[in-house]
Amino acid sequence: MGTHPDSNLHPVATGPAKAIVDAHQAEQPLKLYSGWFCPFVQRIWSILEHKRIPYQYIEINPYNKDPSFLALNPRGLVPTLEVQSRDGHPKPLYESTVLAEFLDEAYPNTGPRLLPEDPYERARARIWVGFCTSRLVPAWHRFLQFQPTSDREGLEKVRGEFVGVLREFAAELPAGGKGPFFHGAQPGMVDFVVAPWVVRLWVFEHFKGGLEIPREGEGGVWERFAAWKEAVEDLRSVRETLSEREYYLPIYQRYADDTAQSEMAKASRAGKAVP
Amino acid sequence: MGTHPDSNLHPVATGPAKAIVDAHQAEQPLKLYSGWFCPFVQRIWSILEHKRIPYQYIEINPYNKDPSFLALNPRGLVPTLEVQSRDGHPKPLYESTVLAEFLDEAYPNTGPRLLPEDPYERARARIWVGFCTSRLVPAWHRFLQFQPTSDREGLEKVRGEFVGVLREFAAELPAGGKGPFFHGAQPGMVDFVVAPWVVRLWVFEHFKGGLEIPREGEGGVWERFAAWKEAVEDLRSVRETLSEREYYLPIYQRYADDTAQSEMAKASRAGKAVP
Repeated sequence: MGTHPDSNLHPVATGPAKAIVDAHQAEQPLKLYSGWFCPFVQRIWSILEHKRIPYQYIEINPYNKDPSFLALNPRGLVPTLEVQSRDGHPKPLYESTVLAEFLDEAYPNTGPRLLPEDPYERARARIWVGFCTSRLVPAWHRFLQFQPTSDREGLEKVRGEFVGVLREFAAELPAGGKGPFFHGAQPGMVDFVVAPWVVRLWVFEHFKGGLEIPREGEGGVWERFAAWKEAVEDLRSVRETLSEREYYLPIYQRYADDTAQSEMAKASRAGKAVP
Repeated sequence: MGTHPDSNLHPVATGPAKAIVDAHQAEQPLKLYSGWFCPFVQRIWSILEHKRIPYQYIEINPYNKDPSFLALNPRGLVPTLEVQSRDGHPKPLYESTVLAEFLDEAYPNTGPRLLPEDPYERARARIWVGFCTSRLVPAWHRFLQFQPTSDREGLEKVRGEFVGVLREFAAELPAGGKGPFFHGAQPGMVDFVVAPWVVRLWVFEHFKGGLEIPREGEGGVWERFAAWKEAVEDLRSVRETLSEREYYLPIYQRYADDTAQSEMAKASRAGKAVP
């Protein structure tokens, strides 16, 4: 795998995330197999931190995977959790949105609950979790991986589509001072599931000439979005699971050049869903 | 919409499903907006029947949607549920897998629970619910919509890929007489989510020269699959939410000719995910 174009990424977390990694090296029954840069991992990592669930952090180089990790999860994707099942054997779980619900259900008394109590509100949250995976993340990648040198009009189109997706999400945020989070005054499932792509919005300023989100108008959706974004960025569990920006740069440079070879990058290039 | 190539589908349920539709015309707080032929609808319809939850059945022609339905769910997809939320107002919910979990949570004491109690087993069930949507249904459509006249080798490839997906699922079914269902002796979430595509496997015999599933071997996975398929096909809630086969034929003919214009058909043609 040495010639893989993504294989020279920085091997470990830096900055705030490094301190968290260092504090989670001791053996624990619950293990997070992680990639420090991966937004799907950050969903789960930030939830572990938010709920203060004890866990062991294990860094996986996704482009050079350890055989023992592949034995645990043959699909080889991060995040993977190793959990103790009822029969006492360690078992793998994967799919970040499944893991998020697992942590909420398996640790009901450790930290705040992520899903509301009311069945209708739980279903509404799951609809918007699905929206993030099926609409927001693909639009994020279509914008970032678009090659503007050949097609200026196309760049405006993918930018506009991504901003349209953000507007659709923003319209669901609570109005009338009932926010700032999706679920109200406290962060919950939808906030943690969407947060990793929000704290990476700087990539569009850096690589694509800006995001061009309106500051106001449209019934206040953009003011709500700005307040939500600021609140999400300010969460300790989100901030402290981020590394220094300079180490994300070469990774996102390859996405911006559309030469990244991750499963997500390839799926986006082929017009396919989040793998 | 009169010239839409799919708009001449039979307008109402027939056969066993007609009796169920007729028995669910009375006003109820819980309303199922349905298409009698739609497998995503059958997920929810069979769960309503299995749990014996009171509901009102409302047929929607997806190619000629009623404005009042579009006002409720602007995306206009079936299945949609209209539910009474805590504030007393009717509210729409959609996305079939979200609806399945909603019915399990909103009616915990009406009929059997669909998800297991154990958090690990619940997560495992959700992984395989996701597998159905992200892997099984797309492979089903790639096979059915493939045009064999131009490419015989390609037909074997899409057939083999679909059988491979079924094998991957079958390997998760309980061995050692602990079935026949995914969750054990009683049907549960995964069974109802996958069932609609299993009871439609006849389309491959009819349109594509057969499915060619092995009858045995490979560690018993195909015996388990056969027993599971028979048990699922035999569920009252699944049988009675099916119409007469002759009315499905013109619908699946258009898929088999790759001229269908449903959102699912178009997504499959473009190599995209389940919309």
